[in-house]
Amino acid sequence: MREALNTIARERLVQVVVLTANGPAFSAGHDLKELNARRGDADRGRAYFKHVMDLCSSVMQQIITLPQPVIAAVQATATAAGCQLVASCDLAVASQSAKFATPGVNIGLFCSTPMVALSRNITRKAAMEMLLTGEMISAEDAARIGLVNHVVAPGTEREEALKLAKKIAAKSPLTVKIGKEAFYRQIEMPLAEAYRYTSEVMVENMLARDAEEGIAAFIEKRDPKWEGR
Amino acid sequence: MREALNTIARERLVQVVVLTANGPAFSAGHDLKELNARRGDADRGRAYFKHVMDLCSSVMQQIITLPQPVIAAVQATATAAGCQLVASCDLAVASQSAKFATPGVNIGLFCSTPMVALSRNITRKAAMEMLLTGEMISAEDAARIGLVNHVVAPGTEREEALKLAKKIAAKSPLTVKIGKEAFYRQIEMPLAEAYRYTSEVMVENMLARDAEEGIAAFIEKRDPKWEGR
Amino acid sequence: MREALNTIARERLVQVVVLTANGPAFSAGHDLKELNARRGDADRGRAYFKHVMDLCSSVMQQIITLPQPVIAAVQATATAAGCQLVASCDLAVASQSAKFATPGVNIGLFCSTPMVALSRNITRKAAMEMLLTGEMISAEDAARIGLVNHVVAPGTEREEALKLAKKIAAKSPLTVKIGKEAFYRQIEMPLAEAYRYTSEVMVENMLARDAEEGIAAFIEKRDPKWEGR
Repeated sequence: MREALNTIARERLVQVVVLTANGPAFSAGHDLKELNARRGDADRGRAYFKHVMDLCSSVMQQIITLPQPVIAAVQATATAAGCQLVASCDLAVASQSAKFATPGVNIGLFCSTPMVALSRNITRKAAMEMLLTGEMISAEDAARIGLVNHVVAPGTEREEALKLAKKIAAKSPLTVKIGKEAFYRQIEMPLAEAYRYTSEVMVENMLARDAEEGIAAFIEKRDPKWEGR
Repeated sequence: MREALNTIARERLVQVVVLTANGPAFSAGHDLKELNARRGDADRGRAYFKHVMDLCSSVMQQIITLPQPVIAAVQATATAAGCQLVASCDLAVASQSAKFATPGVNIGLFCSTPMVALSRNITRKAAMEMLLTGEMISAEDAARIGLVNHVVAPGTEREEALKLAKKIAAKSPLTVKIGKEAFYRQIEMPLAEAYRYTSEVMVENMLARDAEEGIAAFIEKRDPKWEGR
Repeated sequence: MREALNTIARERLVQVVVLTANGPAFSAGHDLKELNARRGDADRGRAYFKHVMDLCSSVMQQIITLPQPVIAAVQATATAAGCQLVASCDLAVASQSAKFATPGVNIGLFCSTPMVALSRNITRKAAMEMLLTGEMISAEDAARIGLVNHVVAPGTEREEALKLAKKIAAKSPLTVKIGKEAFYRQIEMPLAEAYRYTSEVMVENMLARDAEEGIAAFIEKRDPKWEGR
């Protein structure tokens, strides 16, 4: 996935990414057997665990820094780092039969990195309940608390995610890239700094060819032709 | 609007502001024709765009720093900087027929300053969907995600906003001023610092004449007489 | 309460705390008569008010830093610092007849410290409405905005809170302690720092005996035996 995202980041023809899964689960996160097998290492697995956690956290942040929006199409259970993956995506569409959990607490390993993404998507008490009980929540509850955008009939989640992707792919890829980057940067700033920063972003965006074309097309009541610059 | 807010900030007799609009829209934000006309400037409009963005961001922050609460009464469509205006108000009442969007992405100019206010009002995925698709959301959805407080029958939004304003106008204006200022300051602080700061605010508030009067009136089961000091 | 929490923090056999109240209210916060009686002090009560505010803020932060999760079981009205108490708990279960308010504004003393907890649980406009109007909200509304996790039939809130507590008490107390502490620390960090910090937390958690046992039990499809180390 890291390599795929690295390739996509440089690929100008890809405008939106839909992240989906085959098989019975969306993602259950780490392979526990693989982790446990390294307890026999000279350092009891510490170096390996660190490598795995750093890699996982790095992939989640790649989604945030990717120029293209990423939409999760969740067909089934998303747990632990799999739930984190959904929370890390810009948008998410879930099947009515999808379920979500951060169950690490049940196996003695708290979902501490998943909670970074989770707690930036949903309210504190909702996050705390998922993290402390480890219980599954329904797609409907996930939508209610803000973990996913839409809940759709089972089997249509990929199609609905693609519809959403196509809407976004009709926009200027440059504009979308500018906006996505600015979103995640400004959200970590105090208000005054966020306004200084985004005001600058909008001035540069205004001077881009695609804004000139988009505004002209809007005034002339015609469809814009994006050049991506 | 900047001048009106500057005047209101010094006006002791104004206790609450209701922000409303005439005409078919609440506000559509910037005048695109006016902006585009400056592309012929020697600097391609850069200085003018900067002036406009700084002014807009400054007015939004004036609402936050105004001593009096500001209630948006949204009768119709609020888009781009118009949607930002609603998000920037302390409270908002919307007609069932009001609609909200950040459609800059459709014209190649991402709603980067509007997202500062939007992303501080609603969850990330809800904000991202509005920003990336540019689509309208209903008043009902706006209430569900936290962009407005109440949705009311069309034509009654001004009256309902005034009712809310009158409730707040019955409080001590000094107390409201202290509280509003502290709200936006503490929200940007880490928890321990926020408690240190607001504890000090409450001690000073406790020593004000209006707190002495308010607490005495409460104990004596009579209506308080505010002096605004 | 400060002393009780200090004792509980050192008590290894206590795994979860359920905070509940006797009498007609959950908590109405400060004793206004007691506060007002100190206006006759040489400093008009300033030192005493400061002592009371610091103590209150300190108890709220004790709940956050307590190793064990704290669940509020709210049987009736929770106002001012009582509402802050609910907001400060990790989880909350409320009776259908419970009500919530931050009514300080009605007596000239804005709920400035309560808003620290409140504004970190619910959206800005919902918080602002409670703070500026001082009005009661229902348990149902409290659940909708994220102030409480569950609303249950009157008289069953303590039982339901205990059920939730028992679920959490079945986990490793070490894991829960690690997770709760990391939750409140990471939530105040920028994203990259939060990932660096929680990745380290998970590596240490992975090396603990309870994670080794929990993962082994999961793989072997048996119940884990926690040792709390």
